[in-house]
Formats: sequence, structure tokens, C-alpha cells
Amino acid sequence: MATLRDVAIAAGVSPATASRALSAPDTVSATRRTKVLEAAEQLGYQPNRSAQALASGRSRHLGLVVPDLSNPFFATVAKGVQAQARGTRNAVLVADTDEDPRIEHELVRDLQTSVDGLVLCSPRMPAALVQECATQGPIVLVNREVEGIPSVTFDVASGIRQALLHLRALRHRTVAYIGGPATSWSEAQRRTVLGEVEGIRVVDIGHHRPVYPAGFAATDLVLESGATAVLCYNDLVALGVMSRLRARGVRVPEDISVVGFDDIPTATYVTPMLTTVSLPLTRAGHEAVTMLDAALAEDGTTPTTAPLPVELVVRESTAPAHESP
Amino acid sequence: MATLRDVAIAAGVSPATASRALSAPDTVSATRRTKVLEAAEQLGYQPNRSAQALASGRSRHLGLVVPDLSNPFFATVAKGVQAQARGTRNAVLVADTDEDPRIEHELVRDLQTSVDGLVLCSPRMPAALVQECATQGPIVLVNREVEGIPSVTFDVASGIRQALLHLRALRHRTVAYIGGPATSWSEAQRRTVLGEVEGIRVVDIGHHRPVYPAGFAATDLVLESGATAVLCYNDLVALGVMSRLRARGVRVPEDISVVGFDDIPTATYVTPMLTTVSLPLTRAGHEAVTMLDAALAEDGTTPTTAPLPVELVVRESTAPAHESP
Repeated sequence: MATLRDVAIAAGVSPATASRALSAPDTVSATRRTKVLEAAEQLGYQPNRSAQALASGRSRHLGLVVPDLSNPFFATVAKGVQAQARGTRNAVLVADTDEDPRIEHELVRDLQTSVDGLVLCSPRMPAALVQECATQGPIVLVNREVEGIPSVTFDVASGIRQALLHLRALRHRTVAYIGGPATSWSEAQRRTVLGEVEGIRVVDIGHHRPVYPAGFAATDLVLESGATAVLCYNDLVALGVMSRLRARGVRVPEDISVVGFDDIPTATYVTPMLTTVSLPLTRAGHEAVTMLDAALAEDGTTPTTAPLPVELVVRESTAPAHESP
Repeated sequence: MATLRDVAIAAGVSPATASRALSAPDTVSATRRTKVLEAAEQLGYQPNRSAQALASGRSRHLGLVVPDLSNPFFATVAKGVQAQARGTRNAVLVADTDEDPRIEHELVRDLQTSVDGLVLCSPRMPAALVQECATQGPIVLVNREVEGIPSVTFDVASGIRQALLHLRALRHRTVAYIGGPATSWSEAQRRTVLGEVEGIRVVDIGHHRPVYPAGFAATDLVLESGATAVLCYNDLVALGVMSRLRARGVRVPEDISVVGFDDIPTATYVTPMLTTVSLPLTRAGHEAVTMLDAALAEDGTTPTTAPLPVELVVRESTAPAHESP
């Protein structure tokens, strides 16, 4: 790769002049400036990022930490972050923690030495660890609330309420709930409203990994519970439920209704198409970057925003309850 | 964040001594070394990555550039890259180009100033541009071949052959092919063998974006062609085809057979489950990192490997051809 020295030699000036011509053009003559710029262009010179970062104290990189890139939920947020960061920054460092809070903590502390700020999407660490990390550099949370740290959240409770009211309107009285990870903030939000809708009894099927095989495995517990509908932690779990129901010969929605959460693209690829709660994931990615830039610019102010609105999308996987036997 | 200066003050030594105690412990006394290490631990000191990178000429970061993170194909490769890099490196910078060759070129040139080496997965740039980028830093390609640049590829041609032989065995004689992007190397590989299987006539439906809506839109052209089976550039396209066929009242596989490519998880979530060509995506991510490390260590040697084997997975979306009208 061409160095500043190569540019200086090609332009016939000293390295110091070449450096000034590129970083403070007003300090050198127009002739020399032109020579240096032409040489830099011709050689494909790009300034060394490490040297720039050391001089400015800014890396112009932004970090994004997610539990699982292969979950479309996080891939969509990542695309939102990247699109918003494209104008002002050079790269987004994306790291995947495999849903492991220990790996997550290590990755965060490590990334903080390389980036100006971090977006943590659905972190699984305890609040105290998140706060500890926030003392080492600016952090914005997505889909998690921790005291004193700016965050972009979704109105998860409203989503659960909308789903339960929809099921009640369809005359469901017993609804099974397949929960997500015990370490998930969003899971805790869901649980605060499960008992709130009068006329609906919720059967708790416990905590599960937020993945397709977990939904597949939990389905038999749902059938045992006698529920006429099942509310799932997320769409991947709901897709697993639908597959297992098909294998068991149980029809959706005739025999049992299924509701997901997130509205990932696959929710519309399956038959029947999944009724689910739609979250503005791309917008959350945008807002997190805006918030991080504000934190970097204004030092110390914590922007607070209301949770982003969510919306039940009724498709084909929910129908009026069949008569209980 | 604690600086080296803070550590030196806390340990009661000069910054120079603190620096040596951390980077070249043999050059300071055991007592001072212990004091410095204790102070560093207590203050949560982490060395500045930019300074380290400038000193060593190594960033210990690896870059990964993909056309679209929301395509599970790339998310899976990314997870493979990340898992393999975890042991030896601190972070993988993932960048998404939105399938745009111009954005891709910019991102690559920019990332090269921040990483030790780059993995380019399915790059859309012309070969000459890839070669130009490779003069600026080590590059390993995945799912693309460019002369002089190490690459991990899949035996795409074999996958297409397996699919066509499967369809011929099911007595299909006219097969529609929905192609991928004209800028895709993998698409070019597919096209070299489309005419190779005797007894099968392939109707070319043209180039399309490798996404669900493109498959949905191309389906009406497939039906018009009179083909009894359709071979799709990838699974996302095949999923779009299956949805549109359902909307048109055409049954899969009774009326028409559908074959995908990639074997993304969603291929097994849909009804009928998709017959597709399975690629070892995670393994490709692993091998790319191994190859990049070899390139960084041995300078200049270009490891050549055979294309990774691929395998047709027959599920529910293919069946014997119906009698032509």
C-alpha cells in the first residue's frame, strides 16, 4: 500500500509538506498542494487509519453487538444501523455473541478499544455489567433498558396485549405462552402483561432458546396443556411450533391458533402465513446510531425516547377457537 | 477510560516504565512489574488499540464484506468466519453492500485501512477491481474465483447437475431456470451446465435479484413457459415462487416441481419443504479465515483448494412430472 513517504517522493516534496498538504491544505502553496494531491490520487494513497485514530482520538468506527446474526431480527437491525452509519462513518464492526453473556461481555470490552461507540442489541448481560461497560465508552442499547444508559426500545407490552385481545375476540380462553431466554429483558416485559387481559388464562410453558428447534420441542407441552392458542416468544419459535403441529397432524388455525412476535420476512413465506407482532427493526437501527452520535457530540446527555410502537399483523395462523371437548 | 498515564501514576512509576512493564516485562524489575500490573487491573486499563496497531502494523481485526446480511446465506457464512476468528483475533468487521458493486468497492478500500485482511463473500465487483483491491492488502474470496486471488468456492456446477438429473429421473423434460444477478460469479457457474443434461430443455427466465419478491414476480413467466419444474437461483427466490404459485392456485409438487439452492434454514420451515442444493456455508467461513491467516503468515503464497462439495437434498417440493396437456 502506498505510504505518505511514497506520495512525498512522487510529488517531490518532504513528507512533512505532503502531510500538511493533505491534512491542512491552507498551510502549503497551491502548486505543492496540487502536486501532492495528484501523486496521492495516482498512487491510490489512503491515510493510515491507526495513525489517524491515534491523532484524533476517534476511530470513526461504530460497533454493534448482537446475540445471533442468523436470527433475521438482528440481521434487520444490523442493516438499519449500517444504513444510518454509512453517511458519517467508515465501518460498522458487527459481533455475534452466540447468545452467551460471557462471550458478550468479553466482546464488548474488547470492541470498546477499537470503536467510538457501541450499539448493544438485546444484550444478555446483567444490568450491572452493562453499566460497568458504559463507564468505558458510549453505549446505546436496543431492545433493553438499563438505568442511566440511552436506549431504543419497542412497546413490547402493547404487542402482547394486542395479541391477547385478538385471541380473546376469537373466543380463545386458554392460551399457552412459550417464553424466551430468562436473561432477555424483552422476555421480562412480555411476562408483565401476560395476566392482564381479563377472560384469558395463560399457561406458562417456561423459558426456551429463541430458535426454531426450541419451538418444535415445546409444542408437545402446548398440546398437553389443552390451550386452543399459543403465543410464542418470537417468530422463529412460532415457525418451529407450526412444523411440529403439522407433524402431529394438528391443523393451524382450525385446531389451534399460533401467534409469533417480530414479523421477520419468513413469517409471510410459510403456510399458513403467521399472525405476529410487527416491530420497526430498521427504524430502531437508525435511531440507535442517531442517539450514539448525539452521545458522542454532546457528552453525557442521555436522550430519552418513548418505546417505538408495535403492531399486531393478523394473517392466517389465527382463527376462532374450536369448541373445547 | 484509564490511560497508561493513570496506570503509571497509580503504580508510582514513569509512563515509560509502565509501558515496558506491560509490553516487555523482562525489561523492568519484578517489584515494579507487579505494581504496574496490579494498577492496570484495578483501573480496568486496556491498551489503546490504535497505538498498538500503529506500533505493530497489525490491527488484529479481520473484515468481512457481504452483499446482504438479511440473506441467511451470508449470515451463516458470517457466523462461520466469526467462530473461526474468535480464537486468534479480536473482532470481525462485517460490512453489507446492499448488492451494489460501487458501495462494495468503496467499503473494501475503506476497510483495508482498518484490518489485517479481508474476506469478500460473493463480491459483485468486476475481476479487475477485485485484483486492484488485492494489491492493497490480503484478500480471500468466498463463492467467487478471480485469477491470482485465494478463494473458497462451492462446486456449484455439480449442484445444478444433481438437480437436473433428479428432475429428469422424475420425467421432467422442460425446466424453467430463474437466474440470479448478472454480476454474480456463482450465477455464471450455474449457466455453464444448464444445457449439459441430455433430455432436459432449460427455458431461461433471465437474470433476477436474489430475493423473495423477485421469485414471486418471475413465477408468472415460469407458468407461461409451459415448464413442469422450476430451478431457482437460490432458496429466497424459490420461496417467492412457492408463494406466488399458491396465490395462482398451482399446487407444488403435484402441478409443478420447485428446486432451490443454498439450503437456508427456512427451506425446511415451509410447506412443502423445499428440495434444494445444500452448501457447507459455515465450513466455507472457517476455511476463508484459515486461508487468510496463512496469507498473512506466509506472505504471497496462494493456497489453492478444490471447490467444496455440495449435495442435493430432496424434500417435498419435487415429484414426478404431471402429463403435459
